[in-house]
Formats: sequence, C-alpha cells, structure tokens
Amino acid sequence: MRKLITNGWILTMDDNNHEYQHGDILIEDNKITYVGEKKEHDKLDEIIDADNCLVIPGMVNTHCHVPMVPFRTLGDDCPDRLRRFLFPLENACMNGKLAFAASCYGMGEMLLAGITTFADMYYFMDDLANAAQKMGIRALLGETVINQKSCDAANDCEGLAIGESFIARWQNHELVRPILALHGTNTNRPEIFQKAMEIVKKYDTLLMSHVAEMDYEMTYFADNFGKTPVAWLNDLGCLNEHLLAVHCIHLNDEDIALMAKNKVKVSHCIASNLKAGKGIAPVKDMIKAGIDVGLGTDGASSGNTLDLFISMRMFAGAQKTKYHDRSLFPAKDIVKIATMGGAKALKMDKEIGSLEVGKKADIVVVSLDAAHMFPCHDPYSLLVYSANSSDVKHVFVSGKQVVNNHMLNVSLTQLRKDLQEQMGDFNIKAKELAEKIG
Amino acid sequence: MRKLITNGWILTMDDNNHEYQHGDILIEDNKITYVGEKKEHDKLDEIIDADNCLVIPGMVNTHCHVPMVPFRTLGDDCPDRLRRFLFPLENACMNGKLAFAASCYGMGEMLLAGITTFADMYYFMDDLANAAQKMGIRALLGETVINQKSCDAANDCEGLAIGESFIARWQNHELVRPILALHGTNTNRPEIFQKAMEIVKKYDTLLMSHVAEMDYEMTYFADNFGKTPVAWLNDLGCLNEHLLAVHCIHLNDEDIALMAKNKVKVSHCIASNLKAGKGIAPVKDMIKAGIDVGLGTDGASSGNTLDLFISMRMFAGAQKTKYHDRSLFPAKDIVKIATMGGAKALKMDKEIGSLEVGKKADIVVVSLDAAHMFPCHDPYSLLVYSANSSDVKHVFVSGKQVVNNHMLNVSLTQLRKDLQEQMGDFNIKAKELAEKIG
Repeated sequence: MRKLITNGWILTMDDNNHEYQHGDILIEDNKITYVGEKKEHDKLDEIIDADNCLVIPGMVNTHCHVPMVPFRTLGDDCPDRLRRFLFPLENACMNGKLAFAASCYGMGEMLLAGITTFADMYYFMDDLANAAQKMGIRALLGETVINQKSCDAANDCEGLAIGESFIARWQNHELVRPILALHGTNTNRPEIFQKAMEIVKKYDTLLMSHVAEMDYEMTYFADNFGKTPVAWLNDLGCLNEHLLAVHCIHLNDEDIALMAKNKVKVSHCIASNLKAGKGIAPVKDMIKAGIDVGLGTDGASSGNTLDLFISMRMFAGAQKTKYHDRSLFPAKDIVKIATMGGAKALKMDKEIGSLEVGKKADIVVVSLDAAHMFPCHDPYSLLVYSANSSDVKHVFVSGKQVVNNHMLNVSLTQLRKDLQEQMGDFNIKAKELAEKIG
Repeated sequence: MRKLITNGWILTMDDNNHEYQHGDILIEDNKITYVGEKKEHDKLDEIIDADNCLVIPGMVNTHCHVPMVPFRTLGDDCPDRLRRFLFPLENACMNGKLAFAASCYGMGEMLLAGITTFADMYYFMDDLANAAQKMGIRALLGETVINQKSCDAANDCEGLAIGESFIARWQNHELVRPILALHGTNTNRPEIFQKAMEIVKKYDTLLMSHVAEMDYEMTYFADNFGKTPVAWLNDLGCLNEHLLAVHCIHLNDEDIALMAKNKVKVSHCIASNLKAGKGIAPVKDMIKAGIDVGLGTDGASSGNTLDLFISMRMFAGAQKTKYHDRSLFPAKDIVKIATMGGAKALKMDKEIGSLEVGKKADIVVVSLDAAHMFPCHDPYSLLVYSANSSDVKHVFVSGKQVVNNHMLNVSLTQLRKDLQEQMGDFNIKAKELAEKIG
C-alpha cells in the first residue's frame, strides 16, 4: 500500500527540525519512504489531503494505566487517595474483561488525541495486548509487580512471574512490546527490584517504576535508609538505561547527576502531578544534565485525560513558573519532548518520534480549522498552547489509518457501551467507598 | 419566544448548588423563567434536547484584550515582551477595522468555548461594542488609558476622555456595558487613577487595571514609593468596589487584607501568568479573606486561547501545587469561580452567573459524547479536568441561541477571511520586529 499525505505543513521533529510548508509524506506499508517538498509520486493507492493542517509525528505517551478509565472523576481531591481509595476499589472491581473494555476505550481516546505509542503499567496485560491489536495503537505493556495482593495476583510480588511470562509470550510483535513494571520504590523490596532488573536485561526491555513521587516515599527512604530513592536504586544496581523512572518530582542535584551518568530514562506526568499538588519535577535540570525525558498522561484517574496537548501546555506553564523564566522551553522544544523525547525515553527513537525516511509511519494530521488555531505565525505554539484533542483529524500507526476525519475505525459509542456493560456495579462500589472514607 | 432546554444534567451553580439530572430550563425572551425537574410546559416555540449533556451557566471571562487575536503565537517566549514587542507592533498595525474584525473572530471563539460574558481592556471600543452586538455576546468594554501614545490616541492619557465619552454613549444596552480601563499601576500617573475613579463612580461602573503583575512593577513601587502597588492605590483612594484588579500575582498579606476590606474585585488569569512564568497568585488566601475572584483568559497573545476550560484546569493545578494540597479547590468550587465568581467580580451576579429564575438566559450545553467525557461520576470534575471548548454544543446569551450544535450563527470561515483581509501587512511587520529584537 502506497499512501500520500499531501499539502500539509510538515513538522518533522528530526534533528534539524526540518519543515515543509506544503509538503509530501509517502507511506509504504508500515514505513515512511519520502518526506519533503511536494513532487510527483507513482502508483498511489490513496491520497490524503492535509491542506490547512499541521503534520507531526505521532505523540508518545510514556506513562499510563489505560484500564483505569472507569476511575476518571473519582476522588480527585481525596488525600492519600492511592492507598485509601484506588487500591481497594481496584482490588474489588478490576478483572480481565473490564481491563480489556476500558483499554479499548482508553486507547481510542489516545488515538483521537494523536497519541500513537504509549507505555503502560497495569494488570491483565494479555488483555491490554489484545486491545492494542484491536485498536491499532503501539503499546509498551508492563505487568505491575507490587508487595501486596493485586487484582490479577493472589500473592505478594507474583507479578514478577506473570510479567516475565508475558514478556516471553509477546516478543516480536509489530505493535506490542512487552516491558516490566514495578509499582514503586516503597511498594517493592530490594531483591524484587534486582530480580526485575535481571529479567528486563535478559529480554533487553524496559523496567518502569514510579520513583520519587510521594512525600511519604521520600520520608520513608530518609527515615529508613538515610538516602533518596534514587540513591537507593543506585546502590541496588538498578540505575541504568533499562529503567524508565516515572514522575521524579523530588530529586536533588546528586540524584540528577546519578541518573544522567547511568542513562536512566524519565517519564514526566505534569497534569497528574499538578492535580495532586505533589510538586513540579526539575525537568529543566534533568534535560540540562542530558537525561532523556518524555511526557506521560498517567491514568485517567490521575491526569484526567489521555491527551498530551494538555500535558504540553501544562509542562510549559509549570517549568516557566518553577524557574521564573518565560524564555524557558520554547514551544518547539516542547513538541520535541512530546515526540522524540518520548521515543528516546522508551528507547524507540530509531523507529518512531520523528517523520523521517525509514521510520514507522506513525503520523498525526492536526487541523487548523478551529477558532483557536488561527493565526499560525508559529505552528509549535499552536500545538502547545492552543490545540485540543478535537483538532486531531487523521492518525496513522505503522502506516494504517486509525483515525479518519476525527473518527475511530471502530464506533466510540460501541466502545462506551461495552465498557459500561463491563463496569457492572463499579459505580455503586465506588460510591460506597467514597462515602466510607468521606 | 418560549424555549425549553430539556433532558440535560443541570448544574445551576446557585447558592445551594442545586442539580437536576434530567431537568428543564425554560427561557422566555431574554430570561430564565423555570429551572427544575422535568414537567409539562405550555406553548413552546422551541425544544432543545440536552440528553447526555451538562447544562451550566455561561462562563464569565473577567479579563481579555479581544482584538489581540492577530498576535496569537507571536513572541510567546520573548522576555519583556510587552514593551519590546507588543506595544510597538500594536502602535504600528492596530486600527478600528482590524479591531472590529479581530473582535468578531475572538468573540466567536469565546462563544464556541462557552463564554457568554467577558470584560475587555483595549482601544477602539465602539468597534468592539458593534462587534459584540453582531456576535451576540455580553461585553463589558473599557477604553485603555495609558501614559503614552496609543493606537487610538495621539496623546498621553487621552484614553480618559475617549473612555468617558464611550461610557456616556453606551448606557443601557442589553449586551454592552461600558467600563473604563487603566493599563496598569506603573503605566499611569496618580492623578489619572484618581480621575478615572471619579468617572467610574459617576457612572457606577468598573475600573479595570493590571495590578501587581510584573516583577519590574513591584521593584518600581518599592524603589520609588517604598510600598506595594496595592498600598499605593489605597493611598490614592482608588481601592474600592469599583476596582477590578487584574492578575494580582505579587500580593502580601497586608495587600490582601486591604483589598478585602475595600471590596476590590479580582480577575485571575492563570493561563497567561503560567505561560509568562510570572508566578501564581495567592487565590486561596484572597478567597479566604472574602475577595470576589473571577477567571480571565487574558488576550490571545497571552493566554493563548479565549477558553476558560483551560483556565479552570490550570487554576486547579496551580493552586493545589502552590499550596501543596490536593484537597484544595474541589472541581465544583472551580466551576463556581468560572461562573458566579466571575459574575461577582464584574458586579453582575444579580443578572448572570447561575441558572436561576429571573436571571438572564446565558446558558451553555456541554456534550458528554467525546471520549474524554466518560464516565461522569462527578460532572464538575469533567468540566474542570477533561472538557475542551469542542465539547460546547449549544450556547444562549440573553435567551438568543448563538451556538447551535457546535456552530456559530455566522460563518467562522467568513470571520477568518474578514480578519485575514484586515490584517494586511501585520504578518510582515510582526516578522520584521521579531527579527529585530531577536
């Protein structure tokens, strides 16, 4: 199949940030085979007119819990919500069928918002992998390991075995890449971190973990070990290029230097961090030190949308405010972080993250038709400060069009119906729990 | 005309936050005459089905420079942008025809985003008033007074006379309410502030001014007067219920106490403040002290959209982060600030800001159809954390429907064409200036 996207304002996000104001992108099967000025092309099967549109690489969501869509709008303002509300409700209600239905829905939400790749930490990963194949989204999926019973593991840390067998089973898929996920530094024992690291090294994949996110996590490490979580990970031999450290809000200069030296990757989830009032991660300093940082939406109970436009805008405001410097992170740099930054954080920058010949055809066409998308003196500024998910017009993943004129290939109404059906008495249990904890 | 909005989940935002999950709102001419449970109604001219929608009061944008749409995406990251970039470009390019075309466009953008009332500080106010009447939006319009030549005044502070004659000319209109605007505390002399205050008292209207926004403003007042801008205004006799103070980022406890005691109104423009890295206003403390605070988008060169959904989301994140408290400002309180809070800040809370019998029929119907708008355990949370302007389905101002099924009454394409035509060589001059200042 040879598809041409023509007439769009192409922002390649390659190393030189090449742009083509009325350019062409040729897709052959799952790859990009031409990016540049408009020209003649032979034997085209399909032509997509991107007039009055921006054409960008698919955005990369480096951290999500996609099956948590049913939790959206629950307990937003509840202190210590994770332990008092989310864990109990999850253990009471989550199952494979609900995870599948919620994942299909959440993946649809991501595609409609121009996210073509995401990395996820959750349970029932086979169901997520099947959902990713159904929806046509690129997914890095990691079973969660945690030192307590979970919704898919009867025993403490059983996720380690479940996760390894998932990794073994899903090698070499076009869309699905298995990873492993440890819930967090204070929710796993040292030897579990070390075993998990052995597994991801064996399969040359990623270990995702929440790191330096919670106030109580920082206090716990200070009180019990006299060190930061990052220094603790370093002492365990777990600070290396396989680690995708999520949040990293509370870092000191030594942490940042250690992470940079050891090539740790970082997922920064600003919408989630701001909503929880946790603080603003020192991303300027991380990037200055040479750390690869990508953006993450976090789950729909945290973020609350699976949408990186919102994250880009919040990232700009949060960093400029934290460092009291309006000139920090021009919009172009932020679009770069949401695309190539994410690809680098997921160690996939040879395959995705920019519009270049030989890369996977993960492409997003953003319409400039809406009121807020004019004028366009600076297309990056529109993407960061003005665009909504509703401006995403077409989306391609591995060359396949999965959003066409703002619509998914599958009916969103049907996805919602399926999800509602699987939610069963989720709403009732959520309400009971909310009333119980006040 | 008797119009019924039926089947919607009505969030009245009245003093008791009454809700009706499948309720009715009856509009007669420009007023609301029934809000409550579904019932039979006689002689209806029109029925609007709001099934699977939220119905909320029109949002109130307490600060804008609506004709600045052409400046959107220009110089976002430019230090000292106001003096180095915006003033020179404005003085070179802005005229009445451009102000009219840009205002029609920007008012359309606001209506499409569910804003039914806005307060503006700019020039060429007759053109803005005509635009508001054309577009059907409620507008509080204040001519800008500034101690330098401006695009509509050849002389320093001539805006005072222009502004007073505008106020006199536009008394008693259904949609347009004339106010007066002083550019800022450090861009006007003391006696000008006092004269302006006399004028607004005479006409019982508002005086809008930027206050405590800039670092250099704070330094200027500390160095020259040994006091804060708020204390300076107090000493001038200008701190009273007629003052709508915009931004108020840099306030100390005495400032807040003075403002509360004197019933000063505040417009908080978080999207603009974050993008400029200026800081986060102490809104929690202002509200605790009893100050009426509303949200403002600021102009499209600052905000960068004329959309209060973005502002609500940023407000939540910024306040929770500033005070390091996730439980601060539950979503319901934020929707209240964007509606009744704005109405109170503009001293219009007897007429607008909530869905109550006798108030103006300024009503917004927000669709729950989009992927990010499900599930709805908490409708306020969806409005604050998930909704985009694209979810706004219907909008009524003074009973007249101005947005119908996501479309304006006038063609957005035509508004854009008209604006492009009036922009003339704006783009070229902007580019030249940008290159000149680097």
